[in-house]
Amino acid sequence: MTVGPRLSSRRLYEGRIFSVDVDQVEEPGGVRAAREVVRHRGSVGVLAVTDSDEIVLVRQYRHPVESLVWEIPAGRLDPGEAPEHAARRELEEEVGLSASRLTPLAVYLTSPGFCDEVMHLFRASGLTPVPPRPDPDERIEVARFSFAAALGMKERGELRDAKTLLALLLESERRRSNP
Amino acid sequence: MTVGPRLSSRRLYEGRIFSVDVDQVEEPGGVRAAREVVRHRGSVGVLAVTDSDEIVLVRQYRHPVESLVWEIPAGRLDPGEAPEHAARRELEEEVGLSASRLTPLAVYLTSPGFCDEVMHLFRASGLTPVPPRPDPDERIEVARFSFAAALGMKERGELRDAKTLLALLLESERRRSNP
Repeated sequence: MTVGPRLSSRRLYEGRIFSVDVDQVEEPGGVRAAREVVRHRGSVGVLAVTDSDEIVLVRQYRHPVESLVWEIPAGRLDPGEAPEHAARRELEEEVGLSASRLTPLAVYLTSPGFCDEVMHLFRASGLTPVPPRPDPDERIEVARFSFAAALGMKERGELRDAKTLLALLLESERRRSNP
Repeated sequence: MTVGPRLSSRRLYEGRIFSVDVDQVEEPGGVRAAREVVRHRGSVGVLAVTDSDEIVLVRQYRHPVESLVWEIPAGRLDPGEAPEHAARRELEEEVGLSASRLTPLAVYLTSPGFCDEVMHLFRASGLTPVPPRPDPDERIEVARFSFAAALGMKERGELRDAKTLLALLLESERRRSNP
């Protein structure tokens, strides 16, 4: 049996950031159901570590949660763009840094129950300044924190964003195995 | 200035699992923009640790990513439901376990750029069997892994779900500080 054939698909919303489909499916095990899916191009997040061992975070107003959120630099893939290219581009555009080293940290599904978004996390180092190219539609504050300070923010519940928490936890793990 | 006033809001899709709004907003800093938002009731995820120190994982077909995904037991909040109640309910329904101890692990935003979903992660222990009440719309395989085996799955890239990775990393951290 083919895994998860889509019997039919209806696009209910076509947006700028995501679209919504309702698919009629017959899933493995024979479940026939209608599944709502948020279609998203995929994203990158970058844990940028400076030569003085600081972590670069950005703070911006996130309308969905109506509050300011600290996050690692991140953004959506352009159509057909390779994740590594998007990571370098977002780092340059959002925070004005070019990375000489970019290594993959993780690839994961943000909310596989209803959304197809894949997040590609990278670690960037060997950073040099370039002119940032901020999106006119965004106001972003850029700040640098020692790794200990960033962990302190996590402990105090000041970091609420999934990719940022995952990146810091993976970096902690990395530092323990390569001290 | 009030933070993030919504000038107007239009519901473009009303679904079973989520809805979609397009809001006209004036954000802090004066940015006026149209923001698309996936509205979601919020979710719980439960890292269940048995008395023999095994981790309970479930595997199910996730149509958005067209593949089988290993995850910690999880689900959506019912309307008005407290996260702790939802965590106990999902653990009973999905895997047939009742927890005598439930402690919060983390509360985070899954994708704050376009979605308001809040994930509440818990750690459950003191587990005793109860009759599971599976959703007729789902086929779920339940399995138990030693903590080392679960970490091995993570290392080999077999765990691709954000909440599952976060729960394991937080549990690792916990075990290092309370060995």
